Amino acid sequence: MVSIKDVARDAGVSPQTVSNCINNPRIVKPSTRALVTDSITRLGYTPNASARRLRTQRSNTIAIGIAPVSYSRVYDRLLHALATEADANDIRIILYKTDSYQDELRQFNALTAGGDVDSFVLTDTGHNDPRIDWLIEHHQTFVLFGRPWGLDDMYDPDVPWVDVDGRHGIAQMTRHLILHGRKRIAFIGWPGLSGTGMDRRLGWQETMLDAKMASAEELAGLCAEAEDDITAGQSACAALLERNPDIDAVVCVSDTLATGAVMAMPAGANITVTGFDNTVSAQSLKLPTVDQPLAQSAHEIVRIIQERLDSRTSQTGRDESRAAGEHHILLAPSIVIPE
Amino acid sequence: MVSIKDVARDAGVSPQTVSNCINNPRIVKPSTRALVTDSITRLGYTPNASARRLRTQRSNTIAIGIAPVSYSRVYDRLLHALATEADANDIRIILYKTDSYQDELRQFNALTAGGDVDSFVLTDTGHNDPRIDWLIEHHQTFVLFGRPWGLDDMYDPDVPWVDVDGRHGIAQMTRHLILHGRKRIAFIGWPGLSGTGMDRRLGWQETMLDAKMASAEELAGLCAEAEDDITAGQSACAALLERNPDIDAVVCVSDTLATGAVMAMPAGANITVTGFDNTVSAQSLKLPTVDQPLAQSAHEIVRIIQERLDSRTSQTGRDESRAAGEHHILLAPSIVIPE
Repeated sequence: MVSIKDVARDAGVSPQTVSNCINNPRIVKPSTRALVTDSITRLGYTPNASARRLRTQRSNTIAIGIAPVSYSRVYDRLLHALATEADANDIRIILYKTDSYQDELRQFNALTAGGDVDSFVLTDTGHNDPRIDWLIEHHQTFVLFGRPWGLDDMYDPDVPWVDVDGRHGIAQMTRHLILHGRKRIAFIGWPGLSGTGMDRRLGWQETMLDAKMASAEELAGLCAEAEDDITAGQSACAALLERNPDIDAVVCVSDTLATGAVMAMPAGANITVTGFDNTVSAQSLKLPTVDQPLAQSAHEIVRIIQERLDSRTSQTGRDESRAAGEHHILLAPSIVIPE
Repeated sequence: MVSIKDVARDAGVSPQTVSNCINNPRIVKPSTRALVTDSITRLGYTPNASARRLRTQRSNTIAIGIAPVSYSRVYDRLLHALATEADANDIRIILYKTDSYQDELRQFNALTAGGDVDSFVLTDTGHNDPRIDWLIEHHQTFVLFGRPWGLDDMYDPDVPWVDVDGRHGIAQMTRHLILHGRKRIAFIGWPGLSGTGMDRRLGWQETMLDAKMASAEELAGLCAEAEDDITAGQSACAALLERNPDIDAVVCVSDTLATGAVMAMPAGANITVTGFDNTVSAQSLKLPTVDQPLAQSAHEIVRIIQERLDSRTSQTGRDESRAAGEHHILLAPSIVIPE
């Protein structure tokens, strides 16, 4: 690795002069600057990242968590999309482990105290998430991937987020099925009151009601719940079919549940099963599925982080980049229909 | 964030004195040191990570790649294990994208030129992998996760690796089936000549031959190949069953193929299907599977990296830590048998 000393020796100047040429060129004589620039180019010198970070007081590094078991089947694709976006913007991605909120806060402390990172991407946020409080309290820059469902004001300017509109994705899928002649369309969702799960279910429910495919009462009978694993999907689908032998489509909240539903299908049944996430499983089974725009999500996440860091370091102090709405981004997914 | 200047002001000394107390305490008077230490403790000052890296010339940062589609179903678990091990050792993990070898080399250049990272973990290495050549040529510290199958000398001291002994895992699984009365045990592997795939297949083949369960000729008929997706596993298993109606177990090279094999089973068949990777799919379907020791793998990876960095910066120059064998670690997986 070429150092600043190598450049200084090559140009016949002091290391401080080389440093000035890089950081404060106006105070260096043009002829000296030309000498140094020439040496820098010839030797292929790149300023040390640590030195640059120390000087700019910006680490240009985003921290993102990795859980013992992934939150979603597309988490690795989100990480790749973020790494791609970071590469294009000369930003680094640091990975930290997320075993519990408490453990995460400990790491937030270490990462920010050492100046290792200057922004965070949070996924899998819950009601009254203590991480959000901590980050706001400690004036840290962050963006949620996923909406802060527990918050009173989803559009709180202090809590920026990027999310994919799952309700819209499931509604599109349900409309597609109706327009292709399916009438008794069931839904398998997740149990409990998760914002994401309830939101996706609404997409099915509203579309079915709007198209007068079923009454609200009938819809309750066409709906089942299952934990996100294959066997649970299989059992839920078998029970649905027993209760409603005339079902002709099953919209599932995830590709995993859809895989289970496929396993519950009687041989030769003409029942369409659809999933969510466009995983290799769905592709392999040729299931219609919903594709999340992860590259676009990563793009918006990095844009918001940079705007917030800029507004923080800007000398005017004006928060122009934080105009309402721009830092709360809901992206539309698309449906994928195999031939 | 508390800066070195805040500490200096609080202790009534110059910032240089504070710096000396931290980096070169012997040159500071004990009474001054006590003052500064007191201020550091009271204000909660942590030396800036960038400053520390610049001083030590070690970034203590490991780079690891993330592919558009994961190499394996346990990649997120490896990342979590590495992040955990890194956290315990005050090391950072930087994530970079791996779209092509060429693109990786470009990023290697940027990451090392800027001093952002001082070591690499490579996964999914291939025959004549140009990344290995580049890293050796540029005197970079790295460890492979997975053996360098293409290399003439697998125990080349310049190419350290950590791997899981898949052959042993599949052999254990096959022995378990034989000891529980299974006799016609088939195998579904990946097509092609991948080192990992051939190695796992040998585990089944050798165990079957040793136990005289089949002749080499019969084994060829009990073996099928399929790309790593559910539908391919399903077709391969259906074809196997048609060819060998007396099959009583199917050992699969991955949980994905095992999931497909389960789908091909006739209702009520008493045929055991086994997988590899202990994924949530295998757990959900209650399939016997092979569990990779990922925490232990991450531990060995970080240990090897640290030993190699130490030996590089040691003043004696002796390569004590690079004794033969220690930097080529083959870990035994365990089999998981659901009740």
